[in-house]
Amino acid sequence: MMSARSRELNRLSACQVAAGIEGGDFTAEDVVQDCLARIAERDGQVHAWTAVDPEQSLAHARQADRSATRGPLHGVPIGVKDVIDTADLPTQMGSALYRGYQPRFDASCVALAKAAGAIVLGKTATAEFAGTAPPATRNPLNLEHTPGGSSSGSGAAVADCMVPLGYGTQTGGSTLRPASFCGVIGFKPTFGAYNMAGVKTAAVSFDTLGLIARSLDDIELFHAVLVGDKPHRAVAGDNAPRIGVCRTHLWDQAQAETVAAIEIAAHTLSRAGALVEEFSTPQGFDQLTAHRAAVNGYERSRGMAAEWFGSRETLSAQMRDTCEVGFAISRAQYVQALTTIEESRRRMNQHFAGFDAILTPCVSGEAPAGHAYAGDPRFQELWTLLHMPSISLPTHRGPNDLPVGIQLVTRHYFEQQLFDVARWVEARLR
Amino acid sequence: MMSARSRELNRLSACQVAAGIEGGDFTAEDVVQDCLARIAERDGQVHAWTAVDPEQSLAHARQADRSATRGPLHGVPIGVKDVIDTADLPTQMGSALYRGYQPRFDASCVALAKAAGAIVLGKTATAEFAGTAPPATRNPLNLEHTPGGSSSGSGAAVADCMVPLGYGTQTGGSTLRPASFCGVIGFKPTFGAYNMAGVKTAAVSFDTLGLIARSLDDIELFHAVLVGDKPHRAVAGDNAPRIGVCRTHLWDQAQAETVAAIEIAAHTLSRAGALVEEFSTPQGFDQLTAHRAAVNGYERSRGMAAEWFGSRETLSAQMRDTCEVGFAISRAQYVQALTTIEESRRRMNQHFAGFDAILTPCVSGEAPAGHAYAGDPRFQELWTLLHMPSISLPTHRGPNDLPVGIQLVTRHYFEQQLFDVARWVEARLR
Repeated sequence: MMSARSRELNRLSACQVAAGIEGGDFTAEDVVQDCLARIAERDGQVHAWTAVDPEQSLAHARQADRSATRGPLHGVPIGVKDVIDTADLPTQMGSALYRGYQPRFDASCVALAKAAGAIVLGKTATAEFAGTAPPATRNPLNLEHTPGGSSSGSGAAVADCMVPLGYGTQTGGSTLRPASFCGVIGFKPTFGAYNMAGVKTAAVSFDTLGLIARSLDDIELFHAVLVGDKPHRAVAGDNAPRIGVCRTHLWDQAQAETVAAIEIAAHTLSRAGALVEEFSTPQGFDQLTAHRAAVNGYERSRGMAAEWFGSRETLSAQMRDTCEVGFAISRAQYVQALTTIEESRRRMNQHFAGFDAILTPCVSGEAPAGHAYAGDPRFQELWTLLHMPSISLPTHRGPNDLPVGIQLVTRHYFEQQLFDVARWVEARLR
Repeated sequence: MMSARSRELNRLSACQVAAGIEGGDFTAEDVVQDCLARIAERDGQVHAWTAVDPEQSLAHARQADRSATRGPLHGVPIGVKDVIDTADLPTQMGSALYRGYQPRFDASCVALAKAAGAIVLGKTATAEFAGTAPPATRNPLNLEHTPGGSSSGSGAAVADCMVPLGYGTQTGGSTLRPASFCGVIGFKPTFGAYNMAGVKTAAVSFDTLGLIARSLDDIELFHAVLVGDKPHRAVAGDNAPRIGVCRTHLWDQAQAETVAAIEIAAHTLSRAGALVEEFSTPQGFDQLTAHRAAVNGYERSRGMAAEWFGSRETLSAQMRDTCEVGFAISRAQYVQALTTIEESRRRMNQHFAGFDAILTPCVSGEAPAGHAYAGDPRFQELWTLLHMPSISLPTHRGPNDLPVGIQLVTRHYFEQQLFDVARWVEARLR
C-alpha cells in the first residue's frame, strides 16, 4: 500500500473525497494531511492563504474520522475567503485595520458547511475588503501573473490543488474572474441564494457568495448543501440546449483570446447539436456599466462607514478613493441608477424566454502579467448586478498559455438548469 | 437661570437639541445629563436599556461641546437597538449567547450618526435576535402592558423621554408596532435605504433599519443624514393629498379601536380636503401573509446557522422552533414564495399610480396587557415585505387609554412624499 502522502489526495474533488472517506479508502486526516503538505510545499510562492492552523485542522479531521457521517461534505476540506467570519481563525479582510481580528461566530455559510461535515482548512487571501487593492497572491499557473481578484486566494488555492473548494464573494466579478484566470470553475448563484450573515459588506445590492472548484460535481454538491436541497448530480444528457450568444456592448474590449473562445465555443456547440442563436440585449443594457458604478460607489462608501470615519488612514489609496467618490454620489443619482438596474433585471428575465442559457465572455482575456492590477471586472459584473446565476468554465487558452474562461448565465433561481447546460457544454468543449 | 436639570432637556426633540446647542442655549453635556437623569429615575421600572455608560456619554458630550459642529446631529443623544453593533458598548442581541459580546466596529448606521455629531447614549432592549422572545421592557404609559417589539427598548425609551431618537429594525413590524403601542412615531424607509452593515441578520429579504422619534422633524433629519441628503424639513402645505384607504384582508382582525382610528382618520382627512378613496389591493395580496411566513422561516433559520448548529441550547424555545420550522422549508417552496412576493412588489408600485399615500391599520389595537406577547405584526409586515416606506402616527386612543397608531405607506424611494403627507395628516388629526 502506498503512503497516504504519495496518493496526493489533495488532487481529488470534494465529491471524491467524501466518497473515499465514506467508503473507507482513506481518512479525513489523510486528506487534510495531503492538503497541508501541498500548502507547505507551494504557498511560499503562491501566497494563497492568510491563516492556516494545521493542528486545528488535523484535530477536526480526526474528530470527523471518529464520528458518524455528519452530512454530504463529511471530511471535505475547504478554504474560506478572508472577508468571511470564522470563529476559530482570524478574519483580516486584507486590511491592516483588521490585523489579528478574531470574530466570535462563524458566518452562516461556514456554519452550514461545517454542519454538513466540511473542515475549514484556512482563510484565503482577499483584496482589501473584497475591493481592488490586491493581496500578495500569485497565479499558480505562472507566478508572474495575477490570479485575479478579489477572491485571489480561493482561486489560486483551488487551482493549485491545495484544497478542492473555496468560498469566494462576488460584488463585481470577484469569483468568476479569479476562477477564469487560474483555470478552474467559478460559480455565483442568484443574488440572495446563500445567506450573507457574517460576510463583510461591500455593495449590498450586488454582494453574493460564490464557489470556486475544479469540478461541476463539487459546485452542485456545495450548492445543494447551502440552499438546503437534496444533493443532486446533473447528468450530461443528450438534450441539446438552446444557447443565446451575448457579446455585450463591451465586445470591443475583448482581447483576441476571448473573441476566439466565444466564437469557437459557439461554433463547436452548434455543431454538437445545440441551438445557438444571437442573444440581443434588452434596451438600456449598454448603460448598466455606468449605473453599476454609481450604485457600487454609494453603497460601498456606506458599507465602510465605520472604517472610513474611524480609521481612514489605515485604508489603501484605492479604498479611500472609493469612499470619497461614493460619499459624493447623491441619493437622487443613486436611486435613479438603482431603479434603472431593477427595471433591467425584470426586462432580462422576460427577454430570456426560450433560452436555457447565455454564452458570454467571462473576462477580457487571460490573466495579465504583474500583481498590481487584478483584471477587468466588467464582463462578470453585468450578470452580478442583474442577479443572474453565472458560471465560468476554463475551456480555452490565451497567448501565454494561460486559461481563458467562458461564462454561462441563466435566469433567477434556475441554478439547476445552469448546471445541466454547463455539464453539456463542458463535455463538448473540454 | 434655572438649573440644567429643571429644564428637562430630555423632553426636547432632536432638532430642538441641535438648534439649542448651536445657539448656545445649553450644552450637549446638559442634554446628556438630563437624559441620564431621566433614565436613572425611570429605567428601574421601564427596563428600556441594556447598556448605558454615563461617564462615556458625558465624555463624548463634553468633547462635542469643545469642538466645532460636526454635522446636523451635533450633540444629539440617540439610543441604539441591541442587535446593532457598537464599538464602545456591548451588543447582546437579547440573547444569553451574546452576553457581554463587544464588537470591534460600529455598524454603518452608528458610524454615520456619530459622523453627523450624534452621541450614543446606550443600547436599547430587543427581543432575542429581533425575533419574538421579548425583553423585560415595560410600556412606559402603563407598566402592565407590553411596549411591543422587537424594538421594545427604543419604543419605550423615546416615549418616556429618555432620549429623542432610537434606532429600531423591522423585519416584520418591529419598529412601527412598538412606536404605535408607546405613542410615538415609527418610520421604516424603503428596503435597503439604510446600510445594514453591522446589524444582526434576521430575514435578509425584509430586514430594514427604522427610526423611532417623537416628532416628524426628527425623522426627516435623521433620514437625510443616513441617505446623504441635505437636511430638508417638509412644510405642512395646503396641497391636499390623495389618500387611498386600504383595510387589507386582515380587516376582520382589527379591534374596535383600530377600526375607529381608520374610519375617523379617513372621515376627518376627507373633510379637511384630502381626496380619500378606497385602495383596492392587487390580485394575490391576501396570500402575502402566508408567503411571508415561508420566506421568513427559510431565511431566519439560515441567518441563525452559527447559533443553531453551535449553541442551540442557549436559544429560547421560540427561536428553536423558528429554526426547526425554517430549516424544514424546501428551497422550492422558498423560491415560489419569494418570487410571488417580488411580483407583488411590482404590481403594488404600478397600482399606486395617482395616490400620494395609503392609509392603513398599523396595529390590530392598543398594546395588549402582559409582557409575554409583544403583539401582532401582520398589519405592519405587509408593507415591510413589499419594501414600501411606512410611517406610524399615534393619532388615536384605545379602551385602556393607550395609543393606537395609524399607518401611512407610499411607493419605493418616495420617502419625501411620505413625510409631506404625514405632516399634512398630523396637522389635521392631532
